[in-house]
This record gives sequence, structure tokens and C-alpha cells, in this order.
Amino acid sequence: MTAKQTSIPRILTTALLLLAPPAGCVSGRNDLPSWNDGPSRHAITSFVDRVTTAGNPGFVPAAERIAVFDNDGTLWAEQPMYFQGLFAFDRIKALAPQHTEWKDREPYRSVIAGDMKGLAAAGDMGLLEIMAATHTGMTTDEFAATAREWSASARHPTLDRRYTECVYQPMLELLTYLRANDFKPFIVSGGGVEFMRAFTEQTYGIPPEQVVGSSGVVKYELRNGAPALIKEPKLEFLDDGPGKPAAINRFIGRRPIAAFGNSDGDLQMLQWTTVDRGDGDRTPRFGLIIHHTDAQREWAYDRASHIGRLDKALDEAASRGWTVVDVKRDWKRIFPSGR
Amino acid sequence: MTAKQTSIPRILTTALLLLAPPAGCVSGRNDLPSWNDGPSRHAITSFVDRVTTAGNPGFVPAAERIAVFDNDGTLWAEQPMYFQGLFAFDRIKALAPQHTEWKDREPYRSVIAGDMKGLAAAGDMGLLEIMAATHTGMTTDEFAATAREWSASARHPTLDRRYTECVYQPMLELLTYLRANDFKPFIVSGGGVEFMRAFTEQTYGIPPEQVVGSSGVVKYELRNGAPALIKEPKLEFLDDGPGKPAAINRFIGRRPIAAFGNSDGDLQMLQWTTVDRGDGDRTPRFGLIIHHTDAQREWAYDRASHIGRLDKALDEAASRGWTVVDVKRDWKRIFPSGR
Repeated sequence: MTAKQTSIPRILTTALLLLAPPAGCVSGRNDLPSWNDGPSRHAITSFVDRVTTAGNPGFVPAAERIAVFDNDGTLWAEQPMYFQGLFAFDRIKALAPQHTEWKDREPYRSVIAGDMKGLAAAGDMGLLEIMAATHTGMTTDEFAATAREWSASARHPTLDRRYTECVYQPMLELLTYLRANDFKPFIVSGGGVEFMRAFTEQTYGIPPEQVVGSSGVVKYELRNGAPALIKEPKLEFLDDGPGKPAAINRFIGRRPIAAFGNSDGDLQMLQWTTVDRGDGDRTPRFGLIIHHTDAQREWAYDRASHIGRLDKALDEAASRGWTVVDVKRDWKRIFPSGR
Repeated sequence: MTAKQTSIPRILTTALLLLAPPAGCVSGRNDLPSWNDGPSRHAITSFVDRVTTAGNPGFVPAAERIAVFDNDGTLWAEQPMYFQGLFAFDRIKALAPQHTEWKDREPYRSVIAGDMKGLAAAGDMGLLEIMAATHTGMTTDEFAATAREWSASARHPTLDRRYTECVYQPMLELLTYLRANDFKPFIVSGGGVEFMRAFTEQTYGIPPEQVVGSSGVVKYELRNGAPALIKEPKLEFLDDGPGKPAAINRFIGRRPIAAFGNSDGDLQMLQWTTVDRGDGDRTPRFGLIIHHTDAQREWAYDRASHIGRLDKALDEAASRGWTVVDVKRDWKRIFPSGR
């Protein structure tokens, strides 16, 4: 409540209370229009009704309605590879004219030539070199400007649209629905935190301070008297797998009541959010996994995929009571426009 | 705005707008009652009026009104030493009966005997051993419970009150005033993030996700099937000096418009927040340093102090345009109760 509201006469406040729908009835048949009326949609709305209904034993105060979302494969697509990797390749091509030596040097040659087999031969060290060349050695401001420009213009190789249009429409609706019920959504993703912040506020309505991700070491300097943070080629924190509960502890400091993911990289975050710790806490908790099952409208992949492998988390889902979204069955539409 | 509010009839919304005070007039003579009417108070209210007055060239949208606060010496006292250190000593004494070997072993013997000279002789390594013995080897939940219990009961050695009552009343009022003007305050402190979160929400009204601090490595485990984070004896991140801009970048991801500190450990945070980066950004920015000048009501210390040394930041204050609070001159009262 802002100070301005404190001067509202009591009669108006009372009128507002009378006009507002009763607590717990915020959800309605118009929520989540891109979700088919089935078990996944029902699990979501039942949980939200339960924690938002005053007087219900499962009621959770608004300040504790923390929800955590993976990004790649959960809020936006992640095929044919993580979009941040495709950003790095685009940057190599854009920077190539200033680095004529790259033409004959791996892994740069393969990236410039679009030779994915050659790049694969360069292995993890090759990929790390590409990431260092495109993500470090500049100020955080310079990197942010580059990432913003890319996300506003670059296009997905097969979907033929901007990457920020490769977001899942049902998940955008879910974010809106949760916010309308006073949830505070955080992204907790293996992606680079500075890369994600270039688009997360505009695309998802999630402000930068609610974006948690992997990070590199930055070094503070006064450059010609102006303060700057220089991105160094050293990983500081990998926000994946067991790193996700550690990141939730460090950045949020409060146990979420809902977690949304799509791969084994989200397994520990789902456990941390939902599994009984034997401490007597009876707060309702919700876990959800998106299972990509629709090769026609987007992609179908799980246990054998190199990107977004979903194996152990899928095995645990039933015993943990996690909701598994079957994209083909549950989602009426996939993306905001087109199919 | 919640979904409930969207159903308010237009006439009521209009009435509310008409009844609300005009933007930029939220501050009044009743704000900041513990601040004397002088240059420091005036600098604060002028800045807030400037960034909150719609139509003013210095107007800043609410989402960008990020304010960062140091904790030790800025929001609560830090003498005769950092309270987290005193917490560690209290823990050593509480744990001593289970560790009879400590009686004859430094640095434990000195802590148990209250022999500060003996402890000083043990040097930094001795202090690190005390911190490791009291802050690691348990789960984050266990540590949080211990820190909460301590902050609710332990008493300051000379002020004879709970540590959470050694907070600065003028700063509590400043937090309230900024929140009433739609600022979002974050703590950015060298203190341990898990230690601070034990009291920051109740004491300052700052929720855990707005507390940034130093952290140790935590390890994720399933203990008897229950997920747990174990605190390991390894420093992960020191949120002090140049670490503060790095932490703001990582945790908040948005440049603050106001920074509040009291020591050289806040110098780079003040620079990062206020100094022109030559990028054409004309957003108004505010820096404030609390200069502890009142040996009668609390403590007087600056350039020569081992705790909260204020030297370089004091030298830079004039040329940077930072407001320097002279506690003796500017603060009518220091603590919520008593002197």
C-alpha cells in the first residue's frame, strides 16, 4: 500500500471491499485459455485456489507465495540448442570481420562456416572458448546492450521468428495468473543472468531482481573516472542441478511453494520446493514438469536428448506428486503467434 | 495491481485518483520525525520529491526506484564489534559444554574466557576458525533457527538491550518514507546473508529476497530422503568494497538510484550508484554516508577505527556530492527506545 492510499476515506475502502470478489475466487474459466481443460490445468488451479483462500488450512500469506521457473524449455524453447549458444554463434559471425585470424582457427572457423560437426569435434573446450570470446572482456553495460539488440532482432533458425516469440503462450498465461493471485515469480535458470535480463522484463514481466542465473566473475574498475564492471573469463556460479537450491537459498532466502521445470537440471529445485523436510511444515507445495511430446507443433524429446534431458525427474514425478504437462495433450497453442 | 482491483468500477477508480494527493507531495512535515530540520534531511526529501514528481525531468518510474543500504553501522550499530562476531562468540560459549577440549585450546579458550587480548593474538586465522565453528557444518535451516533465537534474546554488552533494538530510529523512518514513495530497499552488506535474514524482515520490513550479503558455499543433499543444504567452511562471496557493485549487478541487475553507507566498505557501492558513467543517463542519483560523531549517545569513530573505518569515502564525499550525516547534529534520537 502506498502512502497515497492511506488518505482514502473509509467509505471508499469499504465500498472497494464489498465490490471485490471473495478471496479464493480469483480464478475463473477465462484464466489459462491456452490450457486444455484436463488434469494439468486442474492441478494448477486447485493448488492456487487452495493457497489463496482465506480461512482454508492451506492458505499461504502473499509474501510467501514464491514461485520459481526454469527458463530454457520451460518458459521459452531450447531447440535445436540453448538460445544463449545461438546468441554466441551470432556474435562470433558479427565479430569475425574484426578477427580475420578466426577464419582458419577452430572452433571459430566451424562457427563462422555453420559447421556443427566441426564445432562438436572441438568439444567442451571449444564451446567454452566461444562463450569466453562472446561473453567476457567487456563491461556489463556493453554486454547488456549487445544482448538487448540481439534479442530484439535475431531470428530462430527454424521457427522463423524472433527468439522472444519462441516463448510458450501457456506459460505466459500461467505467469499472469499467478501474479494476479499475488505470487512473486522468479526465474531460476542455468542461463547467464546478464543474458536473460536483456529480455525477461519485457517478455515475461519479470523484473531483473527476480532473475537468478549462472554468472561469471566481474571486476570493478574506475575507467577514466567512470565506474565499470568488467566481465572476466571465469565462471563464478553454475545455476543448474544442485546449484538451483543453493541459488534459491542465496538469492531468495525463502522456500518457494511452487517450482516449474522441464529437465533433470530442475530435479533438485523441484525436490527442494516440494519434498517434506520432516520439520512439521504443512504448507501446500506444487511441482510441475513440462514434458515436450509434440514433434509436430514444436519438438518431442526427453530421456535421450542432449539438450534438456528429462530422465530422473520424470521417474520421480509420480512418487513426488509432481504434475507432468504433456504438451501435445495439455496445450491448445504453443507460441503466442502461429502454431 | 491484483486481479481483484481490475473489477473496480471506473467511477471509484476516478474518485480515488481525485482524492489522492498530487504526485510529488507525499512527503510532509511528519516524515522523518527523528531527523533534525537541517541539510541532511533536506537533501533526502528534495531528492525523493524530485524523482517522484510526475512531469518533473528527474521523475523515475517506481520500478526503477532501487535503494541500497549497508547494514552494520548504517541500519544498526557495529560497536564494540560487528554483531555477527558477537553472535559467534555467544555460540562458542553456548556450545562449549559439548566441546570440553575447547577449554585449553585457542582461540576458543579466549572467547570462552572473554579474553579479547588473547583472541586478538590468535589473529585473522583465529577469527576464521571461530566463524567456521559457529557458521558451518549444519543445515541452512538449523543455522537460521539458531540465528533467529539469538536475535530474539541476546543482549548488547553495553547498550543493555536486544541487538535488534540497536537499530537506528532515523533509518527505520527513512525506510518507511522511501517505501511510502514506492522505493524498493535492498540491504547490500558485508554481513552473512543467512545471519541477516534471521531478523531483517521483522526489524526493517525488508523481505529475505531483498537482502544481499556475503555467503559461504552450501552443498545440496538428501538426508534420509529430505532435501537439505549443508553450510560448508568455504567462503563463496565477500560482499564488501568492490564486491558490492558486483553483488548489485548479480542480485539486483538494475542500477540503484540511491545508496546509503557509513564506511570505506561502501565506497564502491556509492560510486557505482551515483557517479556519471558518461552514457548520457541523466537520472537523479543520491549517495549518503553516516558519519558517527556522537560519543555521548552512541559512538564516535571514523578514519582510525578498526570497525567501520571511514576515510577514503569521507574524502570523496564532497567532490561526489554525497550527503554526509553528522549523527550528533542531524539525529534527534538514535535508537527506538532510550537515548
